[in-house]
Amino acid sequence: MIKTRLTDKFNLKAPIISAPMALAAGGRLASAVGRAGGLGLIGGGYGDASWIDAEFAEAGNAAVGCGFITWKLREHPEVLDQVIARAPQAIFLSFGSVAPYVEVIHAAGIPVIAQVQTIQDARIAVEAGADVIVAQGAEAGGHGEDRATFTLVPEIGNWLANNAPDVLLVAAGGVADGRGLAAALMLGADGVLVGSRFWASEESLVHPNMVEAAIAATGDDTIRSSVMDVARKLKWPERYTARVLKNAFTDQWHGNLDGLIAHSEVEAVRWREAWEAGDVHVANTFVGEAAGLINNRPPAAEILTEMARDGEALLRGQNASWRFE
Amino acid sequence: MIKTRLTDKFNLKAPIISAPMALAAGGRLASAVGRAGGLGLIGGGYGDASWIDAEFAEAGNAAVGCGFITWKLREHPEVLDQVIARAPQAIFLSFGSVAPYVEVIHAAGIPVIAQVQTIQDARIAVEAGADVIVAQGAEAGGHGEDRATFTLVPEIGNWLANNAPDVLLVAAGGVADGRGLAAALMLGADGVLVGSRFWASEESLVHPNMVEAAIAATGDDTIRSSVMDVARKLKWPERYTARVLKNAFTDQWHGNLDGLIAHSEVEAVRWREAWEAGDVHVANTFVGEAAGLINNRPPAAEILTEMARDGEALLRGQNASWRFE
Repeated sequence: MIKTRLTDKFNLKAPIISAPMALAAGGRLASAVGRAGGLGLIGGGYGDASWIDAEFAEAGNAAVGCGFITWKLREHPEVLDQVIARAPQAIFLSFGSVAPYVEVIHAAGIPVIAQVQTIQDARIAVEAGADVIVAQGAEAGGHGEDRATFTLVPEIGNWLANNAPDVLLVAAGGVADGRGLAAALMLGADGVLVGSRFWASEESLVHPNMVEAAIAATGDDTIRSSVMDVARKLKWPERYTARVLKNAFTDQWHGNLDGLIAHSEVEAVRWREAWEAGDVHVANTFVGEAAGLINNRPPAAEILTEMARDGEALLRGQNASWRFE
Repeated sequence: MIKTRLTDKFNLKAPIISAPMALAAGGRLASAVGRAGGLGLIGGGYGDASWIDAEFAEAGNAAVGCGFITWKLREHPEVLDQVIARAPQAIFLSFGSVAPYVEVIHAAGIPVIAQVQTIQDARIAVEAGADVIVAQGAEAGGHGEDRATFTLVPEIGNWLANNAPDVLLVAAGGVADGRGLAAALMLGADGVLVGSRFWASEESLVHPNMVEAAIAATGDDTIRSSVMDVARKLKWPERYTARVLKNAFTDQWHGNLDGLIAHSEVEAVRWREAWEAGDVHVANTFVGEAAGLINNRPPAAEILTEMARDGEALLRGQNASWRFE
């Protein structure tokens, strides 16, 4: 088994966290990952209290954590207390400063995982008291920014080594198999956060048409855009775009945001109805560049076990592209 | 020493290629890399015949290869013959289909290295007869596209395994130290192509102010843009942008390309004069996100030797973030 500071801290069998993907990562996925030996996170997302309650109930006795969209949490601060009362393994915050929340989470003895997209925000999160930094690259599905996993992880790693050596580092964005796990560890991470690969698991709350579209896609078929958030009337800060599969909707409106805003009443309804119906030509499939590495929808436990097994083999130099002389 | 199919093919001491960076990688850099045991490529770039002649002369007896901007080569096909006559170790082509050039290069017994930015172009290059595919991620400095190294390398690796197992795979974009080398090998690459790190070497043809600006920068400080090409009146196909350090020029014109075109006569002169003078506030510093991992300007041989040594240590599990239990 691969052991790291992350497996030590959370008592895991593999240094793998499932991303708290809003609308996709419910209690069933998080608990399946937890039971298989990873850290499973419920996607608290936009802070719907009754949804979060139901998903924690779905997770049952399995240990899980929970993630939030930080800027949205400001509008629903009471949801944080609700989740703290569940004694989750960790609380994960992304897309905004963790500073207002660290004290209350730590007071309950719960670790804070801060996902960041830049070296600047990594420094801010560490100074605010985060216990684990997730460095999220632009290849990730869903919301994020422009820096790549391959450079963001070692750059933050250098900074942590010099300034906060006890803070753990996790790589996110593009990790979908044992190769990605092993590569992330080589870059200096203590583990990985996996979105798209678990998004396409049996337990995720994703419409089958969307998983099928991702399986059929290559990594070339994704785009970072804001048009889905405009269509959904979600007030995301401008710096965060979301990676989705390109489709007729992004073809029409990406690059014409003003046009979309002018037609927003009609387009919002059209997009939301398509989302409910699983119409992937209008509603967008939220998945990362790793779509090109995904060709099935297995149980989450199988994903985790294979990733850990294949990653360990590579780290041991088996099935490797190199040799020593 | 780390050995791979790449070291076997080109008789190298380390699976490291220096990128043929236009205007930065001359004969001095390429020959220094070659003498240190890597594959050094002269940046034939835009196809200036007398410049290329002078740089091959500078390389002297050292074995080197040469790279071209493929779409530009169409305007100067005679330069390809000129370089073939030098019997280079390899000819590297990027940014356009290699199909028109493979036959004449192979007829001279020279391997073709095709750099691609998408899985689609990888397939096209292999079908055209490329011997080595360089998968270039968006984190790279200079020209490129949007896909990330972390997903592009394994996705192309999967395709090659099933369709062209004898074609070699090299990772480019974000590789600046032993961690990057080791991670690229984990992702399935046979080696790495290194740009920014060699760009900031003693032997590169880069104005000292620009290297200093890159050393002072973090990886957050770069941007992909087309404004430099508009300013330089280079007719790059729209799909290719270039990664540079953000400065007053990109602040002013990125996002207002029409405005720049309207002011192009004045701005072109201003940018070019600043480039000559090393004024990094107006002319842009061409460097990748790896700027955040670069803090000195050592000799190229030292860069190569350290990268190979540190990468090998990691592959052997030394200084590692993981352990086995």
